[in-house]
Amino acid sequence: GYSGLPRQQHGLAGAPEWPAVRAMLPDLAGRRVVDLGCGFGWFTRWARENGAAAALGIDLSENMTARARADTTDPMVTFEIADLEKLVLPQEAFDFAYSALTFHYIEDFGALAATVLQALTPGSHFVFTIEHPVYMAAAHPRWLTDDHGRKTWPVNGYSVEGERRTDWFARGVLKYHRTIATTLNTLIGAGFAIRHVGEFAPTAAQIAENADLAEEIERPMMLLVSAQR
Amino acid sequence: GYSGLPRQQHGLAGAPEWPAVRAMLPDLAGRRVVDLGCGFGWFTRWARENGAAAALGIDLSENMTARARADTTDPMVTFEIADLEKLVLPQEAFDFAYSALTFHYIEDFGALAATVLQALTPGSHFVFTIEHPVYMAAAHPRWLTDDHGRKTWPVNGYSVEGERRTDWFARGVLKYHRTIATTLNTLIGAGFAIRHVGEFAPTAAQIAENADLAEEIERPMMLLVSAQR
Repeated sequence: GYSGLPRQQHGLAGAPEWPAVRAMLPDLAGRRVVDLGCGFGWFTRWARENGAAAALGIDLSENMTARARADTTDPMVTFEIADLEKLVLPQEAFDFAYSALTFHYIEDFGALAATVLQALTPGSHFVFTIEHPVYMAAAHPRWLTDDHGRKTWPVNGYSVEGERRTDWFARGVLKYHRTIATTLNTLIGAGFAIRHVGEFAPTAAQIAENADLAEEIERPMMLLVSAQR
Repeated sequence: GYSGLPRQQHGLAGAPEWPAVRAMLPDLAGRRVVDLGCGFGWFTRWARENGAAAALGIDLSENMTARARADTTDPMVTFEIADLEKLVLPQEAFDFAYSALTFHYIEDFGALAATVLQALTPGSHFVFTIEHPVYMAAAHPRWLTDDHGRKTWPVNGYSVEGERRTDWFARGVLKYHRTIATTLNTLIGAGFAIRHVGEFAPTAAQIAENADLAEEIERPMMLLVSAQR
């Protein structure tokens, strides 16, 4: 099941995109960090272990936040249960915002971007990852073989934004497809400056260690964004 | 042949993305405009007809610039032959830079972005379109049908940047694939701020008028970018 995924069992080290994400992070020393969709709290704890003054993890799941809480004794690492669709955050209470593979479950990204902006002090960064729109768009997102026998990722309905249902551990998991343009323009419209965009691809060393990653050369699977208030 | 394409025969009105591009343009009144890869000069002339103080079109093709020149008597509309790979532009000589469907033929986009930046006055915009990386990436970019009979666009080799050869009016036309991330990060690295990103999709009205456009709902065919010095 879901809890058995490498990234759930081994945390950041189990996520192949983590080195690329880490390279996009600002120095966290002394910063107050918020981690949106923190799951088991791997990044929340990592932020504090890497210099953050405090780190707050927020997730909808009672089970996950309970386990996240049980995995630390640090009083400056805290966890809260909240729905990101209706998130309220205090003004300028954080100096860095983070989110990993969560926002593609959010219907109203515009409201969330505005909430995060006002919760950050001016100059603060907001780094997040989502499933790449090219990965999510198709009605039946499964590898195809082209006429020349090459492993090929299908794209259709790209410009039709909105609900996508897939079977992933549970049947009919609901996600929301947005184009890259919409994601970036939403951030810009909220008042963020785009600082860096990443489309995760494994390195040769990662593929040598885990041959399953080779197919991620063919398609962009994750979109990584660094924005700044 | 190429000269018979709607956008070559009918100019801006023959390009379905033109309304979306036009919506991204700043007010051109009084601006000195440079049009990179101007072809027959449709936009160069349009800029001057829409308030620009002067408009310079640049293209590698002697034939195209000759025809562009023959199509105007306006002394403030000029055309030059130059290779964008080795472009030199005077410092802060322009107040707006434009390019339509040209930069995917350019190998060194970083050098070109730096050249454009220094040629613009501070605050000036740079609006351009390219073939979308999702449209260009695959080794054999042709429609497929997925297992459910749906028209589907193939993606492979997305993260492998560099040469792509296609047969388009001539055999083996050479293009250069770059990821969206690379295009945006190159602009940011050169000193531009990203103001708007577009991924052209036809409107319902456009599809009603031209049913061939319906397939452009399925895949992103063009990337539109507005950046600002």
